[in-house]
Amino acid sequence: MSGYSQIRYEVQGPAAVVTLNRPEKMNAFTRTMMDEIIAAMDEADADDRVRAVVFTGSGERAFCAGADLTPEGGGHVFSDPNPVEDLSDERVRDGGGRLTLRLFDSKKPLISACNGVAVGVGATMQLPMDIRLASDNARYGFVFARRGIVPEAASSWFLPRLVGMQTALEWCMTGRLFDAAEARDRGLVRSVHPQGELMDAALAIVDEIAGNTSAVSIAMTRAMLWRLSATEHPMMAHRIDSRAIYRLSRSADAREGIQSFLEKRSPRYPDTVSGDMPDFYPWWDEPGYR
Amino acid sequence: MSGYSQIRYEVQGPAAVVTLNRPEKMNAFTRTMMDEIIAAMDEADADDRVRAVVFTGSGERAFCAGADLTPEGGGHVFSDPNPVEDLSDERVRDGGGRLTLRLFDSKKPLISACNGVAVGVGATMQLPMDIRLASDNARYGFVFARRGIVPEAASSWFLPRLVGMQTALEWCMTGRLFDAAEARDRGLVRSVHPQGELMDAALAIVDEIAGNTSAVSIAMTRAMLWRLSATEHPMMAHRIDSRAIYRLSRSADAREGIQSFLEKRSPRYPDTVSGDMPDFYPWWDEPGYR
Amino acid sequence: MSGYSQIRYEVQGPAAVVTLNRPEKMNAFTRTMMDEIIAAMDEADADDRVRAVVFTGSGERAFCAGADLTPEGGGHVFSDPNPVEDLSDERVRDGGGRLTLRLFDSKKPLISACNGVAVGVGATMQLPMDIRLASDNARYGFVFARRGIVPEAASSWFLPRLVGMQTALEWCMTGRLFDAAEARDRGLVRSVHPQGELMDAALAIVDEIAGNTSAVSIAMTRAMLWRLSATEHPMMAHRIDSRAIYRLSRSADAREGIQSFLEKRSPRYPDTVSGDMPDFYPWWDEPGYR
Repeated sequence: MSGYSQIRYEVQGPAAVVTLNRPEKMNAFTRTMMDEIIAAMDEADADDRVRAVVFTGSGERAFCAGADLTPEGGGHVFSDPNPVEDLSDERVRDGGGRLTLRLFDSKKPLISACNGVAVGVGATMQLPMDIRLASDNARYGFVFARRGIVPEAASSWFLPRLVGMQTALEWCMTGRLFDAAEARDRGLVRSVHPQGELMDAALAIVDEIAGNTSAVSIAMTRAMLWRLSATEHPMMAHRIDSRAIYRLSRSADAREGIQSFLEKRSPRYPDTVSGDMPDFYPWWDEPGYR
Repeated sequence: MSGYSQIRYEVQGPAAVVTLNRPEKMNAFTRTMMDEIIAAMDEADADDRVRAVVFTGSGERAFCAGADLTPEGGGHVFSDPNPVEDLSDERVRDGGGRLTLRLFDSKKPLISACNGVAVGVGATMQLPMDIRLASDNARYGFVFARRGIVPEAASSWFLPRLVGMQTALEWCMTGRLFDAAEARDRGLVRSVHPQGELMDAALAIVDEIAGNTSAVSIAMTRAMLWRLSATEHPMMAHRIDSRAIYRLSRSADAREGIQSFLEKRSPRYPDTVSGDMPDFYPWWDEPGYR
Repeated sequence: MSGYSQIRYEVQGPAAVVTLNRPEKMNAFTRTMMDEIIAAMDEADADDRVRAVVFTGSGERAFCAGADLTPEGGGHVFSDPNPVEDLSDERVRDGGGRLTLRLFDSKKPLISACNGVAVGVGATMQLPMDIRLASDNARYGFVFARRGIVPEAASSWFLPRLVGMQTALEWCMTGRLFDAAEARDRGLVRSVHPQGELMDAALAIVDEIAGNTSAVSIAMTRAMLWRLSATEHPMMAHRIDSRAIYRLSRSADAREGIQSFLEKRSPRYPDTVSGDMPDFYPWWDEPGYR
């Protein structure tokens, strides 16, 4: 697939790799980039070859240096001579949040290969991903309070789920930059790698997922963990996982899962995300912006 | 108490010990085992001598190797020629979830002494317990996606509360086995012990609880932490703990708590879970399966 | 400001320092102390010079040794010959919870400099603070079950958000004292300091916040992280942060944030919490006690 101007999208075996691709601007985030990542997510979700999506940045310096505030980046919104009065208007919606809500809905695992500086939306866009890897030169910053604004992209919901309240508050209240080792020690990042080995480490996780698991199982698992963990009582999880076990236990993938286990061989799952999700999926009513 | 065929239930001082007891099957989980653990929980909750429940597996290899999918284990459900159409039917309910919801409602602390392999429901049944110990040969696996199904037993609700979202997602998306050290480093397990010392370590925690605390306090504390931490605003916790402090401050246990503290001696709490819970307990409406 | 009898309140540069000040009683908590801390919070929130509030205890032994149960401390409530029957009556409300709910609503960051023993309400009052520091002689204890009562001050909501469910349950179920190193290793405390350096470490964080960030940004950030992280779906966060970015991007602070960044100089933010919060703040309906 081509047609993108600010990202690259490549399918490599079971992985789709999304590369933020404005290296001369440290991959700064724009409305165009937002639109393109969302389009790439639609591609990846619809492509049954793709078992996981890896995100990285072009060049050796930056994953994404934050929002591009020049007119080219969409910063003109803030100099609009006719600002919107009704804050529930769709035009008020933060671009980082449009992106992270789309990532939240992904049917495929999302893996960050953070290859350098990641500040502002460059940091927050990684939060709804499932596994975060960093190169040893990575730097993170939730710098919003140092710019007179606030944490965006729904990061106030995501960040404490990853690192707990104390670390989330400290990072957002000081706005300071911190390195890959701190990101790992506090739980933001799963592991740190030399820059030259980062992409291989991410692709190895994709291979582990693709080689061993059912795509339908993974799409369900992803929605269940992110959504059901946030409910008030485990009964909601019991309702959904009971339905899922009941339906999927009769699936071709479940038969293959048991059979390959008994035969001590790698599985070859026939079911697809495009065609074989359980009939009650999605089980939720998605809230709208208002 | 006896009459159990697939577990052992023994009261040893202040501890009830539940031993999953199918060592020739690596203690694989069956409907019968589910029924028996639930019955044992009812016994433990009703027995004022019991101050905590310890769970372990028979033999030196396994805590529980997952669901027994043979007809003996209840796997016949999935070859039922007349599957249920209405997914809100009680017969659809996952057995692992029936068990974990019962553990969630326990009035006594639950301690896992995980003495070996714990995969599938063998891992998820430990999540609603309060403190998890492991022997150094323990192995865990949230293997569901490797079998074509999904995490069950309401584990999508429980697991992120214990280890955060990133670790929960990684374990469930790869489905890989991991050892006791990783379980401890990621927060699933409190501590790792040589197998020969595991049970003593668990019983020492029971003794510490029994020797120092009020049973009524502990039953209230357990319900409060699991339930109130999942609400949207701390006011709900303030409502419940205000009522609890108000009622319990006038109790015989509170008098003994203060008195024994002032006299620098061990307390002898007179109140019982069977007879002296505050009048507003339980304060919640339990959601049903539907 | 003066007029306080059981605390000291001092403004030192950008910091307000609240010192629990009953050293002869190990700073035990009373109704008077509760009233005074709440009044101090009102002062700090209304004073635009104050960028963060630091809490510490007077003397070298204790931060706060828990509730003073003598008549002087308000313990007489529990010997009231006419106890309240209606548990939704305001008089039933726990004093620790009145305090922590006020801290929860703070517009300024709250930093604990825990200089010694912190048990009971001395521990729980620190939970709604944002960053917790400890001296190396600090000791914590969630001792409620050892006194025949339950965790108060809405700690069942706060504590698992900081340390996860397993640690929260273990600390509350054993009621045991633990030291500063354990508090740090489990995530309760951010860092441990020699007692003589504790206050400087806390004030350095205040300086870092004051020297780099917008006060309006921080007040918004604080409310967003604590409140939005507890909602069921990231859309609620997206609604609020979209509105906040939209409004604040047009603010004087945002202009100064960008300008000072481009000019590589320290910012001088003109906006104030007293006058320049976004028009939709507060965005929530506060639940009442009932």
